[in-house]
Amino acid sequence: MQSYNLDALLVVGSGMHNPAMVYLTGGSSLTNAYLIKKVASDPVLFHTSMERGEAARSGLNTKNLEEYHWDQLLEKAGGDRIQATVSRFQLMFNDIGLTSGRVAVCGQSDAGLAFALFSALQAALPDIKLDGEAGGKLLLAAMATKDQTEVDRIRRMGQITTGVVGQVADFLSSQRVKDQVLIKSDGNPLTIGEVKRQINLWLAERQAENPEGTIFSTGYDAALPHSAGTDGDLLRTGQTIIFDIYPCEVGGGYFYDLTRTWCLGYAPDEALALYEDVLDVYHQVAHSLRPSMPFGKCQELACELFSTRGHPTIREDPLTLEGYVHGVGHGVGLHIHENPFSRLKSGDKDRLEVGAVITVEPGLYYPQRSLGVRLEDTFWIRPDGKAEVLAEYPHDLILPVK
Amino acid sequence: MQSYNLDALLVVGSGMHNPAMVYLTGGSSLTNAYLIKKVASDPVLFHTSMERGEAARSGLNTKNLEEYHWDQLLEKAGGDRIQATVSRFQLMFNDIGLTSGRVAVCGQSDAGLAFALFSALQAALPDIKLDGEAGGKLLLAAMATKDQTEVDRIRRMGQITTGVVGQVADFLSSQRVKDQVLIKSDGNPLTIGEVKRQINLWLAERQAENPEGTIFSTGYDAALPHSAGTDGDLLRTGQTIIFDIYPCEVGGGYFYDLTRTWCLGYAPDEALALYEDVLDVYHQVAHSLRPSMPFGKCQELACELFSTRGHPTIREDPLTLEGYVHGVGHGVGLHIHENPFSRLKSGDKDRLEVGAVITVEPGLYYPQRSLGVRLEDTFWIRPDGKAEVLAEYPHDLILPVK
Repeated sequence: MQSYNLDALLVVGSGMHNPAMVYLTGGSSLTNAYLIKKVASDPVLFHTSMERGEAARSGLNTKNLEEYHWDQLLEKAGGDRIQATVSRFQLMFNDIGLTSGRVAVCGQSDAGLAFALFSALQAALPDIKLDGEAGGKLLLAAMATKDQTEVDRIRRMGQITTGVVGQVADFLSSQRVKDQVLIKSDGNPLTIGEVKRQINLWLAERQAENPEGTIFSTGYDAALPHSAGTDGDLLRTGQTIIFDIYPCEVGGGYFYDLTRTWCLGYAPDEALALYEDVLDVYHQVAHSLRPSMPFGKCQELACELFSTRGHPTIREDPLTLEGYVHGVGHGVGLHIHENPFSRLKSGDKDRLEVGAVITVEPGLYYPQRSLGVRLEDTFWIRPDGKAEVLAEYPHDLILPVK
Repeated sequence: MQSYNLDALLVVGSGMHNPAMVYLTGGSSLTNAYLIKKVASDPVLFHTSMERGEAARSGLNTKNLEEYHWDQLLEKAGGDRIQATVSRFQLMFNDIGLTSGRVAVCGQSDAGLAFALFSALQAALPDIKLDGEAGGKLLLAAMATKDQTEVDRIRRMGQITTGVVGQVADFLSSQRVKDQVLIKSDGNPLTIGEVKRQINLWLAERQAENPEGTIFSTGYDAALPHSAGTDGDLLRTGQTIIFDIYPCEVGGGYFYDLTRTWCLGYAPDEALALYEDVLDVYHQVAHSLRPSMPFGKCQELACELFSTRGHPTIREDPLTLEGYVHGVGHGVGLHIHENPFSRLKSGDKDRLEVGAVITVEPGLYYPQRSLGVRLEDTFWIRPDGKAEVLAEYPHDLILPVK
């Protein structure tokens, strides 16, 4: 905190699906809480009476918000909830001896309420300078390298992920094909919506959550990197499927991120050619990973390799919708996308430090040909300098069908 | 919007688990987007290139953010992402002819980033007045009454919820009891963690999500209203279990909210006495529901009834941890807790308008006796003025075991 010139950090919001709060409390089912960490002091978790049990479970110092008599504060503020909350913050800050200095704010909230509340709090506290950016930066920098426990948790999510990917592969392979369309045992065609429901079920069986959904897209959708797929679409042999899966621990913990591209039964030449280019770039980028290297160098390499093979890239045209159109990777942790990022002009904050957990995910997209290919795994930069895939799964393009 | 004196509404954030964005887009898998609705104009959805397919699915007018050349804006801002985002907002606002007036902001975001970004945007746009509160208030007021489609969706979630509650009841009833503890077929005792995993699985089978977790608490935990329960705890006959379940549609759609209190095998007299008081208050409050009545009147009634029966209530002592310690209900929709609330001094915004979907959930808590009882259902205030439970489930206290 000192290197960010901060005297305190204030984290707001829920104990679930709220990375800053999960990081500092270890995760809890608190629905609404505040955590304040003063420099060189232990954090204090402020909670409601109803949630005193959950707060105590965190093992942190706790303080019950009811002690500030909300009803009286609200009455004094003429019913203005923002002003009553400001008054309560003043009392809370006083209680923990936070009377001056720079206080960073972060945590998931409504954007408008945060703007209104912290603007009002800033106006009420002339001796405190509220900072909206430094807290997030500090935490993202801390989160950018994982300790062994975090790596183990991400690896476990990787095992769950690859387990489900295998179930999906077996499920698709076990369907019959009729007129190039996958048909269920009841004679009806299988839809992408049904595959996605199976994925959610298999993730739940393995005790994972899937708050961000799954990309399972085919045809034109597969050529749009973030298209989640169309529920009613059927599965046809010879068409590329992009299957990008990114579940997290229950309650909003650590994520894993993996993508495979599959062709059912056979691969047309043009799909195979794209796949071979993507697989080659995947391997070359994966082999280039070194501790302390700027992650942007990987993006540079991917652009260079794809460009040499004749594909348009965002290096030459940032607006291209064809060819290689996105970054080669990102950090994975309590956010599905977090530092470091593979920005072309990446600075010191985007280096692959030992302990970084990142994706490598080259892809090629040709919407006019309804073709898309992406391969992605999650890597850990180990203390010995090696980059390790946290959960292995074959990269095969062709998925045999009956 | 005119009654809130607003010229435009800006919604930020993801298309999932973000009520304001879900409400205005109908739900989508956009990971990061902006929606701007000018008064008397159709909304415009700003999206990245990668998500142009998802944006188009919304059926709204769309605009691709790449057109603003982020890389150039970032370079011009000397790498300052907040300033580059401010410049992009200026261009976006110009493009849609938003050059002056009051603009409300809402949507899920990091609180610190929202504070930093909208403070900087306000400083850069002297002719626009950014409002952090009005957007949320406007949307919450709109969301506080549901149309038929919304009611149908909540009812469907209610059917899923009661279906799973029935599965849990059957599951518990089918276990053996040994020395007053529920024992699985493998001879090991059943734990609360295992019950919760089954709940998540059964919800996934019915295509629901459970982002906020489940309260399944027994013993001392049951006497703390929001204690989620302890995973390692065993299930003992004669002990009260509070089972509060609040799943939502996949992707962060409509919630349902239901609580039952169960005693396995038999109920001790003191648990039965509390249960009868809670059930009586539940029925009296449910029968009191009338269109246009302030929801606070229900809380007044609950406090009065519990007080008459000799229980401490928060009406007499807002800090009490024993007796009746929380509100009697809240709105349910895209938020698990939303308007109207049963605040004692509730004003016009907390009236039970036709179309309101609310919970009725009286409870009694005695931590020193490790006793808690709560009963909760979700009601719809129908156009004919009747209050209807959207998904019926028996209120029985005793759950028979083998």
